[in-house]
Amino acid sequence: MIHITRRERFNAAHKLARPDWSDEHNKEVFGKCSNPNWHGHNYELFVTVKGNVNPETGFVIDLKDLKDLINREVIEKLDHKNINLDVDFMKGKLASTENLAIAIWDELAKHIRGAELHCVKLYETENNFVEYFG
Amino acid sequence: MIHITRRERFNAAHKLARPDWSDEHNKEVFGKCSNPNWHGHNYELFVTVKGNVNPETGFVIDLKDLKDLINREVIEKLDHKNINLDVDFMKGKLASTENLAIAIWDELAKHIRGAELHCVKLYETENNFVEYFG
Amino acid sequence: MIHITRRERFNAAHKLARPDWSDEHNKEVFGKCSNPNWHGHNYELFVTVKGNVNPETGFVIDLKDLKDLINREVIEKLDHKNINLDVDFMKGKLASTENLAIAIWDELAKHIRGAELHCVKLYETENNFVEYFG
Amino acid sequence: MIHITRRERFNAAHKLARPDWSDEHNKEVFGKCSNPNWHGHNYELFVTVKGNVNPETGFVIDLKDLKDLINREVIEKLDHKNINLDVDFMKGKLASTENLAIAIWDELAKHIRGAELHCVKLYETENNFVEYFG
Amino acid sequence: MIHITRRERFNAAHKLARPDWSDEHNKEVFGKCSNPNWHGHNYELFVTVKGNVNPETGFVIDLKDLKDLINREVIEKLDHKNINLDVDFMKGKLASTENLAIAIWDELAKHIRGAELHCVKLYETENNFVEYFG
Amino acid sequence: MIHITRRERFNAAHKLARPDWSDEHNKEVFGKCSNPNWHGHNYELFVTVKGNVNPETGFVIDLKDLKDLINREVIEKLDHKNINLDVDFMKGKLASTENLAIAIWDELAKHIRGAELHCVKLYETENNFVEYFG
Repeated sequence: MIHITRRERFNAAHKLARPDWSDEHNKEVFGKCSNPNWHGHNYELFVTVKGNVNPETGFVIDLKDLKDLINREVIEKLDHKNINLDVDFMKGKLASTENLAIAIWDELAKHIRGAELHCVKLYETENNFVEYFG
Repeated sequence: MIHITRRERFNAAHKLARPDWSDEHNKEVFGKCSNPNWHGHNYELFVTVKGNVNPETGFVIDLKDLKDLINREVIEKLDHKNINLDVDFMKGKLASTENLAIAIWDELAKHIRGAELHCVKLYETENNFVEYFG
Repeated sequence: MIHITRRERFNAAHKLARPDWSDEHNKEVFGKCSNPNWHGHNYELFVTVKGNVNPETGFVIDLKDLKDLINREVIEKLDHKNINLDVDFMKGKLASTENLAIAIWDELAKHIRGAELHCVKLYETENNFVEYFG
Repeated sequence: MIHITRRERFNAAHKLARPDWSDEHNKEVFGKCSNPNWHGHNYELFVTVKGNVNPETGFVIDLKDLKDLINREVIEKLDHKNINLDVDFMKGKLASTENLAIAIWDELAKHIRGAELHCVKLYETENNFVEYFG
Repeated sequence: MIHITRRERFNAAHKLARPDWSDEHNKEVFGKCSNPNWHGHNYELFVTVKGNVNPETGFVIDLKDLKDLINREVIEKLDHKNINLDVDFMKGKLASTENLAIAIWDELAKHIRGAELHCVKLYETENNFVEYFG
Repeated sequence: MIHITRRERFNAAHKLARPDWSDEHNKEVFGKCSNPNWHGHNYELFVTVKGNVNPETGFVIDLKDLKDLINREVIEKLDHKNINLDVDFMKGKLASTENLAIAIWDELAKHIRGAELHCVKLYETENNFVEYFG
């Protein structure tokens, strides 16, 4: 068994704010991340899949297939978008890095064939990242 | 004469779109960067100052002073903000990386003392950056 | 359960040398790292905490709180200091990256609330790092 | 128990192609990676060893010894070489990143003393890497 | 006037060796870079263009156009190729980083419209790069 | 004419403090950088040489020669040393990044043959660097 990881990137706007809270209460809890006019990030996404090496190809999974899957199911829906407003799989959720990583896992896990999704790692900035193992 | 550079970072939302154009025309010219609901970036800013070494301190400029200046005049106004809506020195300008770098130069140049502003370098993503020399 | 990581940095001097050994013996065992007049590093610290996502905030832990904790308990005691001479929690210990990571774990673990410390990862150079899981 | 990691690098040529397949079939399965005249990479290798801290030295393993071992057994055989043609431990194997990481593990594991090999992590590009845990 | 830079990457095989010299003489002059069976690199290319900001778009040059140009004229010809054997614009030239940067300049300069090519910067490894200003 | 750059690294201790000033006055001017017991950095050094390409080799300068020169004249004298106490070419100088870059230039310039030293760029941290052009 071996792990293989593909990095992809997307640039998106978001804010941390509950619509059922006032701006003041959002500011208290989420600080500057609650700015009503949004802010944004260059997110960096690492998707790790694990499985056995196929003796015919030397691959756990064809990285081109993995790249296409991540782009079709995740990147095209997030890149140059507003995470709170534009992304179907984030509707009704707080746009925290934690929730976003979990949602990306859910979008990918159902499509991985012949190997197993192991980890979704998501950088919001160079100083902050989350890892979700399902 | 020697050059010294300080790196700072800010996370902001923006879009590339002219209010005097239709969404369709903005889309044609600016592509996905014109998404009406915004997107965002982790901007990386490098400010380079040049001058002679002060023999008493070994410094061209005290980096703590330079850091404080950049934070007060630039980072606090941009970080966790919407460049199109929240930033006084970008009002009425297209929020391109080029225009943003020039505006940052203009904010900083008037405050540098005892040395000379040499370059504002601004990364929008790991693949794109601009440099402005005044 | 999800993992979240915060990066912080500190710049410190140290040497690898046992006071109960001669300079020659220290040189034999620790090589150039035993230089009597010290050397130093830009250390990079990654602190990983794990827990469940709070449904009210979307957070495992408030990163601002985690950042403040790491700075108060660790960075302020190490940054611009001599690890062998200036740091209370390293007194009487060899200033190896291994021992430093373990000591940082011990300083942090007692203060983490509502989540669990998972890993302290410490880079001494771009080519060397340690990870401690408690 | 603590983990310690050493990074090394090597630059090598390879191709993904089975000698028992036609160029066309290799192209179909391996895409541009099957280019008959080779292509190449700056590989980045992270070797992680785990064990207890030796109270006399503060070390899990002497990093100079680990560095020398990796260089002697792995880097000197791969750096500025053709992985398909020049490397004894890759003879008869598809030169995928997966197979290369496993082969590097096998070369190193037999020489680690007083600690245990934990992971071989191998980057082929900044976007792709594999991890093997034995 | 402002400078704007686009980063692209390609993975290629090459060797440093003159066909009019013996393998021994090539080894003497070019060391391990002359390995007859090739080696390879992840090259990183930075293309800098300078010009005035177009007041209608806020752009010096449309980065999508610049990206497409670099990919069509340079990356597609070099990526997953052998620089000595497969690349028309390197035929008959020593495949040094210097010569490659100059050749890339020559391929690009003739196609830049409305702005001026300023610099081609080419990394062979993380420790070595060249810059050509025409 | 083309520029070529070699990166090297060294880890050193230093402090910013004038021996003719009291600890208090040093603290006032140099802040935490004046810690009497030293602190340290992983310095990153970029040496840029410019010249014409030798048509026989495709080189401006043999990078192995440049690497050996930088290591012999600079790195061996600074790596795992105390810049204030151990380095002959820094004796009597304030150990600022500015002064160190100028001193490195002076050590290297006299030994470059067949090409010209263009720039010494020295990173003290990921956020601060200086460039000296002679």
